[in-house]
Amino acid sequence: MNAFVPTARSKVKRLSERGNYDRQAVYAVVDAGLVAHVGYTIDGQPYVTPTVHWRHGDTLFWHGSAASRMLQTVAGCVPACVTVTHIDGVVLARSGFHSSINYRSAMCFGRAEAIRDPKAKEQALEAFVERLTPGRWAELRPVAAQELKGTLVVGMTIEEASVKTRSGGPKDDAEDYAMPIWAGVVPLRLTADAPVPDTKLNPGVMLPDSVAAMVAALKHPPGRSPC
Amino acid sequence: MNAFVPTARSKVKRLSERGNYDRQAVYAVVDAGLVAHVGYTIDGQPYVTPTVHWRHGDTLFWHGSAASRMLQTVAGCVPACVTVTHIDGVVLARSGFHSSINYRSAMCFGRAEAIRDPKAKEQALEAFVERLTPGRWAELRPVAAQELKGTLVVGMTIEEASVKTRSGGPKDDAEDYAMPIWAGVVPLRLTADAPVPDTKLNPGVMLPDSVAAMVAALKHPPGRSPC
Repeated sequence: MNAFVPTARSKVKRLSERGNYDRQAVYAVVDAGLVAHVGYTIDGQPYVTPTVHWRHGDTLFWHGSAASRMLQTVAGCVPACVTVTHIDGVVLARSGFHSSINYRSAMCFGRAEAIRDPKAKEQALEAFVERLTPGRWAELRPVAAQELKGTLVVGMTIEEASVKTRSGGPKDDAEDYAMPIWAGVVPLRLTADAPVPDTKLNPGVMLPDSVAAMVAALKHPPGRSPC
Repeated sequence: MNAFVPTARSKVKRLSERGNYDRQAVYAVVDAGLVAHVGYTIDGQPYVTPTVHWRHGDTLFWHGSAASRMLQTVAGCVPACVTVTHIDGVVLARSGFHSSINYRSAMCFGRAEAIRDPKAKEQALEAFVERLTPGRWAELRPVAAQELKGTLVVGMTIEEASVKTRSGGPKDDAEDYAMPIWAGVVPLRLTADAPVPDTKLNPGVMLPDSVAAMVAALKHPPGRSPC
């Protein structure tokens, strides 16, 4: 099963040639993102909450305070939607109609549940830290039992998912190319600036490889489409 | 009325000191964003769809194909949630527990409806183009009636909204400061690279001020919090 099987829920309707259900395509967009937007419903009212996420196989994880309304809600195994979006550029065509955005977006559907076993919870948090900053878990002060208790980690098996992307330059109407209008793409990317050490940093503590690796990865985000 | 009045729906529960309901704070986060995530529900299933947005007063606008499921759904005056998020940095504390993200996020609630009057629709689209690229509307090939017909523009009056932000360095437990662990912030920002002209650009057409202004704004996004 190398692709998710779309139903009416995840099938890309508009510009269906931009849609992709391959697992690897979904994973690539999800993994290249730092933040996901989690959709859930309380009493008929939809909510969209941003959160950092990570993935293992077909399971998406996110976490936060055990008192979080978002986490308490989604942990109840209710239908959820987790969307990860990258903005790769503004496409400036010769008409407003054909102007567009270059993007990669993954929409994942499923039901989340709380990871209750403390050992599994701690392993999930370790996977999160290691995904962002490989090697940092061992550098950090160990997790206290009280902290683990106050943290809610949820996992959502992706039942179905789709990726939608646009890349490349403007596609104008044939007769518009003759017009003296500038057209092209302004590439956009999330970029990291130089790390800013804490003002209370102990003298002599150097930037570790774990953090340097994250900065390097964010300077050249994996899976970014060329414009 | 300089602030939105929060109800249980928009009141920031967790870390309530990070919450803000001032109109100007909401506007600043919304306007600094290129993309919003729109939450809506179909048959009990929440969906989160990314889209470009713009704002006039308390009204949020977004648009797309008249065939879009998202737009057809939200235009039905159903409860919606529109969230705009900026990721300003990764906060690396001396413990995993206090590690965090610097962010600004606005969550807006309301019900959208279609802008049906062609004149109002065109004016809304002009406002969108002018927000991103001031002066470009006049440069573009005019909108065709057929294009306007195929475009669905929705407007959502913000009934209530909240902004949540985190900025600054790590806040560690007092006893952890003595540990020889690197701590600090890796600042992040969405940045524009040099515009890439369309390969079919007419010779002699120069980059207009409208596009240059967008590139400059994205290089120094307004409202970005210092780290």
